[in-house]
Amino acid sequence: MRYAYLGPAGTFTEQALLQRPEASAPDAERVPHGSVDSALAALRAGEVDAAVVPIENSVEGGVSATLDALATGDPLVVVAEMLVPITFVLAAPAGVTLADVRAVGTHSHAWAQVRGWMSTRLPEAAYVPTLSTAAAAAGLGGPTEDQTPYDAAVCAPVAATVHGLELLAGDIGDNRAAVTRFVLVSRPGSGPAPTGADKSTMVLYQHEDHPGGLLGLLEQFSVRGINLTRLESRPTGEGMGRYCFSIDIEGHVDDERVGEALMGLRRVCADVRFLGSYPRADRLAATVAAGTQDADFQHARSWLRSLRTP
Amino acid sequence: MRYAYLGPAGTFTEQALLQRPEASAPDAERVPHGSVDSALAALRAGEVDAAVVPIENSVEGGVSATLDALATGDPLVVVAEMLVPITFVLAAPAGVTLADVRAVGTHSHAWAQVRGWMSTRLPEAAYVPTLSTAAAAAGLGGPTEDQTPYDAAVCAPVAATVHGLELLAGDIGDNRAAVTRFVLVSRPGSGPAPTGADKSTMVLYQHEDHPGGLLGLLEQFSVRGINLTRLESRPTGEGMGRYCFSIDIEGHVDDERVGEALMGLRRVCADVRFLGSYPRADRLAATVAAGTQDADFQHARSWLRSLRTP
Amino acid sequence: MRYAYLGPAGTFTEQALLQRPEASAPDAERVPHGSVDSALAALRAGEVDAAVVPIENSVEGGVSATLDALATGDPLVVVAEMLVPITFVLAAPAGVTLADVRAVGTHSHAWAQVRGWMSTRLPEAAYVPTLSTAAAAAGLGGPTEDQTPYDAAVCAPVAATVHGLELLAGDIGDNRAAVTRFVLVSRPGSGPAPTGADKSTMVLYQHEDHPGGLLGLLEQFSVRGINLTRLESRPTGEGMGRYCFSIDIEGHVDDERVGEALMGLRRVCADVRFLGSYPRADRLAATVAAGTQDADFQHARSWLRSLRTP
Amino acid sequence: MRYAYLGPAGTFTEQALLQRPEASAPDAERVPHGSVDSALAALRAGEVDAAVVPIENSVEGGVSATLDALATGDPLVVVAEMLVPITFVLAAPAGVTLADVRAVGTHSHAWAQVRGWMSTRLPEAAYVPTLSTAAAAAGLGGPTEDQTPYDAAVCAPVAATVHGLELLAGDIGDNRAAVTRFVLVSRPGSGPAPTGADKSTMVLYQHEDHPGGLLGLLEQFSVRGINLTRLESRPTGEGMGRYCFSIDIEGHVDDERVGEALMGLRRVCADVRFLGSYPRADRLAATVAAGTQDADFQHARSWLRSLRTP
Repeated sequence: MRYAYLGPAGTFTEQALLQRPEASAPDAERVPHGSVDSALAALRAGEVDAAVVPIENSVEGGVSATLDALATGDPLVVVAEMLVPITFVLAAPAGVTLADVRAVGTHSHAWAQVRGWMSTRLPEAAYVPTLSTAAAAAGLGGPTEDQTPYDAAVCAPVAATVHGLELLAGDIGDNRAAVTRFVLVSRPGSGPAPTGADKSTMVLYQHEDHPGGLLGLLEQFSVRGINLTRLESRPTGEGMGRYCFSIDIEGHVDDERVGEALMGLRRVCADVRFLGSYPRADRLAATVAAGTQDADFQHARSWLRSLRTP
Repeated sequence: MRYAYLGPAGTFTEQALLQRPEASAPDAERVPHGSVDSALAALRAGEVDAAVVPIENSVEGGVSATLDALATGDPLVVVAEMLVPITFVLAAPAGVTLADVRAVGTHSHAWAQVRGWMSTRLPEAAYVPTLSTAAAAAGLGGPTEDQTPYDAAVCAPVAATVHGLELLAGDIGDNRAAVTRFVLVSRPGSGPAPTGADKSTMVLYQHEDHPGGLLGLLEQFSVRGINLTRLESRPTGEGMGRYCFSIDIEGHVDDERVGEALMGLRRVCADVRFLGSYPRADRLAATVAAGTQDADFQHARSWLRSLRTP
Repeated sequence: MRYAYLGPAGTFTEQALLQRPEASAPDAERVPHGSVDSALAALRAGEVDAAVVPIENSVEGGVSATLDALATGDPLVVVAEMLVPITFVLAAPAGVTLADVRAVGTHSHAWAQVRGWMSTRLPEAAYVPTLSTAAAAAGLGGPTEDQTPYDAAVCAPVAATVHGLELLAGDIGDNRAAVTRFVLVSRPGSGPAPTGADKSTMVLYQHEDHPGGLLGLLEQFSVRGINLTRLESRPTGEGMGRYCFSIDIEGHVDDERVGEALMGLRRVCADVRFLGSYPRADRLAATVAAGTQDADFQHARSWLRSLRTP
Repeated sequence: MRYAYLGPAGTFTEQALLQRPEASAPDAERVPHGSVDSALAALRAGEVDAAVVPIENSVEGGVSATLDALATGDPLVVVAEMLVPITFVLAAPAGVTLADVRAVGTHSHAWAQVRGWMSTRLPEAAYVPTLSTAAAAAGLGGPTEDQTPYDAAVCAPVAATVHGLELLAGDIGDNRAAVTRFVLVSRPGSGPAPTGADKSTMVLYQHEDHPGGLLGLLEQFSVRGINLTRLESRPTGEGMGRYCFSIDIEGHVDDERVGEALMGLRRVCADVRFLGSYPRADRLAATVAAGTQDADFQHARSWLRSLRTP
């Protein structure tokens, strides 16, 4: 089995991948990619069997690159989710002290999460954007380090270790409870079976100029007693104010209530892109409202049949 | 075929029955009953094949006796509806003039519909309740007429003719557009097929102490784009403030949207009593919202199947 | 003070009136009327100061005559409600036994509530409608009793006593828990102050051909956290399928949430007829949802003011 | 008047600022800032009178840095919005040809919008992130150009001109209709008056664990006939799945319907942060549903007053 992930080695994404036992198996191969797009393209092309990408951060919100890459192109489905606590460190080559730091390199999302610490401890430091937090560390850990336009990197602890850097400060994130949610994505096929503690992900496209549209979509869930756990609006690219909705719900496509809600959405939406059902990382059982158990649906179906053919 | 109806001969109910061609067939027998309960009991007992009873008047509202009798007891279903314009006349035996009228006999519903005319033209007349408008006419047309405690009857034109009365005044209803809706009821069996212009009738019982309950029930219809044409609350008899809802909707139980709504109600209600699907008397095609045609449901079902077993 | 009520003496309505201490005061005058219309007309004409009429029965449902009389004509408001347990007896002149009873007189609503007992114990008895249960008793208690076309009356215990009848059977109602709700009505003026356990009554008229109309009206309540305790549809008389809604809600017109809901209804309805706020007979405090206390509204209003004029 | 903006000179943000006539006045000073945070901090500190920042892109979606910076810290309000069509060019120092380009510098949002062109025309080019598109151009236009780790920049046409670069390709955006929406922000004070074609912006924070929460918030708008034009969820930072909602609606805080909706939200939300009312850039008049004009509210208020003190 080959797994693409948002690399390089040492990213939080690699940590997420390593949470999957099958990805640590002797015959498993882990292939770092430079971007979410690249990792998912490799999956679509059949070069790998699955890919791990970040989808949501508890501080920064949805990862647009992932949301957009899943919403377009050949179909892919989420088969698992992984939560990784995010811990940032400030790392530099041996010999550099905090007082020496004039510029700091890191990914823009990471920079956003250490703004508070930086404004207090390094208010004069310039910010240099990099492609990833691991790339920031890598820039200081190689032979061309003296050409790197920054003196220290904000990165994951593992990246500092990998690239032989020393810690100037540990756990510098403004929000100590920051967590990033990653998803394991594969090509469509038989997905994971229901566990009773599942989520489903989808993207909903409305018909144009549909007043009160989002309310109508949410009612398709509420009337079947389904809770949402994430809702992001993403532009469709067709013009200002034209959005689709990327949504996670409690429940599995094989659950009766989820199936009926999906059919309802399919009927009233311009398009519904189903992105998979998978076990929740936190193992919290879904809330199932009165009258929305599978047995309730089956009983109602039998009853309807008896009405139609008495 | 034997048909029970709310008699005696000469009632508006008989007129409704005679709208049905099959009820005028040579071998058809029309059996008058003294009450709605009695007519429906005869149907339940198998003594007749169908029964015609009034269900709703455009001035007086729902006919409680019918609503309650259909809502309880052995199941019955509506298989047709008939609309009868309601015209009231004031009739009396030959020789009686308007000036002679001291008391007027009629059914309380009829009295309510001629109150305006009476308060202007016969303000001093006493009101004597009778079991039906036809019974009021019959009381003046038989041999014991001089013991009848009223001098004139408010009844249908046909009842005046049947009982040999003369008209003191014609069309005395306060609302000239008054219409009563009657239903042809039979025992459950293969009901009329969908015509595209159908109604369905049902009674919904909520679980006890269900806040916002009616709103939740109406959402089961609205989310599937179904219009209501009648909603009556009726006490369940279990205590003040305990109601069930007698409802007519546009559409047929064989319509996908109606079937799914019925299943939804079945899941969330304490009980749903289905009372039949039948062609609308006015032949108005049902309004079908975007995404709620049968084909939309079938397409959505195929799509869901493809998600579940890719 | 003069009080009109639906008479004659001995009706359940008189019992309701006597629950009001002020109506038993030495200077209080109680004026029986032959119909709800007549009692309310006397009130509108200024002949009496208040009127008591039945509005809802736990078995038979809304009292159409009262609902319709309050919904039209000069404005009147409900200022109190009274609950009266309904107990029916079968009464007859001395010497009459159950075996002698060929015909029974009573009001049609009462007849409906003793059908079960009658079908078991007097299955052969004919039914003779009367204007009220008390009138049925009166017909047997006077000098013309031998011309009365029935042998026994179904009435309230007090009516049997008043008219000197003897009981053939006591408590013959099919539903032993039957209760009728009466209202004390007066001309508009300063109504009762809020008590925290109040109801308000109103009639809502929709604009013509308003799809999903009732749902929209109910949302005006639900969005302000207001519970309904009664909803009746009543025809407007303008044609089949044209209804208004007679509604009781928890809360007082002086409550902020009720005031805003009433304004919302006034904006979206063709007409709103407010019929008063008054203490609940059962003294149950209103359920007040989070964020809908008066203080919440006042705080929100101050906040809005600060936004508008910073 | 001093205006902060997201610089450096040559950004699309500067173009947005220059759409405001007052910002081109002789005494107006335009102060470029390196980040949205910095521009808004200068405004909060009183160093400038207003600031222009991007808030939404028709391709990339909401600008998180702006949404988050407005949602926290001392209150600021939007007083105007500006739309700028986004045109990207590929620019390089004189002498560089397309074939010479090994690496391309630009802001990550711009990179996302030219991915299609790049994968077709420069599939081998590496991507180097920069702080802004203008910074990418600046890096190639100064004396240290030979140390810049890329050969060409993706930037606005004006930035290429400002920094003396030549165009290798023009209009290379994948979506030719791309538009970015900018807002002019100031400290709270008397904002722009209603024009009939206004928007209002706000951030809504729900109480914790509020099932069906978003639906309830949207109903506060729908019941007053208010359309949403943008809805973004943003993490509150308190944990995975904890979101607030950044919302634009049609209408002005001085509109009655908007005022009542805001009060409703204030009552049911944990917090509502109002971010201003301002004329729409496209001058489209707000849709005002039946019954939600200011006059409707005023009429309803008078009517309620008459009910409360007859």
